[in-house]
Amino acid sequence: SNPSLLILPGDGIGQEVMAEVRRVIDWFGAKRDLAFDVSEDLVGGAAYDAHGTPLHDDTMAKAQEVDAVLLGAVGGPKYDDLDFSVKPERGLLRLRKEMDLFANLRPAQCFDALADFSSLKKDIVAGLDIMIVRELTSGVYFGEPRGIHTEDNMRVGVNTQRYTEAEIERGARAAFDLAMKRDKKLCSMEKANVMESGILWRDVVTEVSKDYPEVELSHMYADNGAMQLVRAPKQFDVIYTDNLFGDILSDCAAMLTGSLGMLPSASLGAPMANGRPKAMYEPVHGSAPDIAGQGKANPIACILSFAMALRYSFDEGADATRLETAIEKVLADGVRTGDLLGDADTTPVSTSGMTDAILAALDAS
Amino acid sequence: SNPSLLILPGDGIGQEVMAEVRRVIDWFGAKRDLAFDVSEDLVGGAAYDAHGTPLHDDTMAKAQEVDAVLLGAVGGPKYDDLDFSVKPERGLLRLRKEMDLFANLRPAQCFDALADFSSLKKDIVAGLDIMIVRELTSGVYFGEPRGIHTEDNMRVGVNTQRYTEAEIERGARAAFDLAMKRDKKLCSMEKANVMESGILWRDVVTEVSKDYPEVELSHMYADNGAMQLVRAPKQFDVIYTDNLFGDILSDCAAMLTGSLGMLPSASLGAPMANGRPKAMYEPVHGSAPDIAGQGKANPIACILSFAMALRYSFDEGADATRLETAIEKVLADGVRTGDLLGDADTTPVSTSGMTDAILAALDAS
Ligand SMILES: CC(C)[C@H](C(=O)O)[C@@H](O)C(=O)O
Ligand SMILES: CC(C)[C@H](C(=O)O)[C@@H](O)C(=O)O
Repeated sequence: SNPSLLILPGDGIGQEVMAEVRRVIDWFGAKRDLAFDVSEDLVGGAAYDAHGTPLHDDTMAKAQEVDAVLLGAVGGPKYDDLDFSVKPERGLLRLRKEMDLFANLRPAQCFDALADFSSLKKDIVAGLDIMIVRELTSGVYFGEPRGIHTEDNMRVGVNTQRYTEAEIERGARAAFDLAMKRDKKLCSMEKANVMESGILWRDVVTEVSKDYPEVELSHMYADNGAMQLVRAPKQFDVIYTDNLFGDILSDCAAMLTGSLGMLPSASLGAPMANGRPKAMYEPVHGSAPDIAGQGKANPIACILSFAMALRYSFDEGADATRLETAIEKVLADGVRTGDLLGDADTTPVSTSGMTDAILAALDAS
Repeated sequence: SNPSLLILPGDGIGQEVMAEVRRVIDWFGAKRDLAFDVSEDLVGGAAYDAHGTPLHDDTMAKAQEVDAVLLGAVGGPKYDDLDFSVKPERGLLRLRKEMDLFANLRPAQCFDALADFSSLKKDIVAGLDIMIVRELTSGVYFGEPRGIHTEDNMRVGVNTQRYTEAEIERGARAAFDLAMKRDKKLCSMEKANVMESGILWRDVVTEVSKDYPEVELSHMYADNGAMQLVRAPKQFDVIYTDNLFGDILSDCAAMLTGSLGMLPSASLGAPMANGRPKAMYEPVHGSAPDIAGQGKANPIACILSFAMALRYSFDEGADATRLETAIEKVLADGVRTGDLLGDADTTPVSTSGMTDAILAALDAS
């Protein structure tokens, strides 16, 4: 039987960009004999509207069974005043936690055709290709105790940063494995000068590095990491960091490329019985309520997330590259959604127009 | 009697740049009738070498008594393997905590003469003038429980993010007060979508804003904050954020200006009996062991920290501006320490050569 995909478009532009991804999936089924059994369900605000919860238990169960989940984006102003426990984000966080997707891969790549688009100088970012591996199932996102309580008539907000050796180690192995396939450089980031959890992080990563003698390991405080990303991002190959630092540093790195609408991500867990890792793929951008429903969204980040699925879940690296190359070609030809307009000699297109161009480039490939 | 200053040069280039600040202090005593009683002591690795502790109790007591502390920088590879409890950073953190310096003011300003020096495009950073107010005495830096313990034969690292309403409020007031003297815009940053401490943060800041109806308040998730700082930093006036986010975001903002050697900071607490706030002033840069002792360090960040002392501790705003203007003039004339070389028509100078030029500009002012 065909491998299975669960599509969770979510909110805002998540719905539009995911519709485009389905066209790309169909192309691979028709033209490359890569057929998938695709099902679709709700997450985030859309799930809350239908069921009063940002992720229905049935959806959670389906996510556990499929070969890979593709997620669009969650959230929107409509849901801002909801209780913390049912906010759209909780649906996303539940998927990450219950599928145990501990390794979040966030490539920050600058596409040649878009190098001018960055707020950084072209020579600083042209050719940039960093892979950030963010631990995704632990740390302050999930640590207990947490909450708001009252002490002496005053509210106190508490969250707990907590990492076990095993949690740090499995993410580190994923990061070292990636480094081995790339430039064999890994930089681990924490605040070991201030936080004991950072000391443990540094210890464990150093320990794991003994199994990867070919990888050059360095350590950097996370504040310096943010600086160095802005100053000279090309010094990095793979970066390994925790859930919260990874959230901030990967967004910082993403913005260096100048094109948030271009950046995919993969969240991977342990291998399932069939050998494939538990996996969820999603664009780095959010639900962008300000442009939702207007055909303005850039579908590339979401389409590139499907390319990551081809590579990491289905071992179809050649077809992943085929798709990525088609996208590069379209960009080199000057095809641009609204978020990428600005430079000379470009052709503005809508969300579906971008997909048309990508499919045409695939046909020609 | 004269107001008192305690000088703690610390480690690495901290010692050299502070020697230059003393020359500037002397100039104000001789030429502007602003004399200070200056004493000097050890902090960080230098204190550890002398006393086996990064801050001697006697030094701590002196810091509590003076009108303001000027600190250089702490740390260096020599101390990397010391136990966490006696690392150079602990001296700095003890000063912040025991002096209760809750409001850390970190201006990120781009000097016209140096706009080309940023890794960002000139139009993105020219004229940049942000003030980051970082909460400095609480959060994950100081929260309990903390440490590394063993559970089921496995090490676990724990730190606690903890904020009381009162802690969030007093920092917010400092930030709103600054906004009132600037462009009346305040952006508060947290992760209220993921952390309950962030929800409390947002609540309290919103509450405090009612006392500042003229200030336009916005809220942003810290990851988006990092992105927006890179994308379009001039959208910000004052940013208020917690100890850990502030550490990372202020370093990110600092690097936008392209010249870390230029950036001062002030850490302020409650008013003392004489009405002056408890205060410590320090450059944002570190101890830079790689260039220490070679006369290469840029003393401007540390000299500008003294300018902040004139403004915030001694109410000598006009003299602070006099000093800042002298520095701008020197930069406009092309005088540059090694960290700022690179553009055309500049004159390379040593650490003390830079001060010579600044004192000459002061003489001419
Ligand atoms: C939406 C939010 C919960 C999420 C996070 O904080 O992890 C997002 O910022 C991300 O980086 O995927
Ligand atoms: C030296 C270190 C403890 C310190 C911090 O983390 O606060 C530094 O990075 C800073 O920002 O002043």
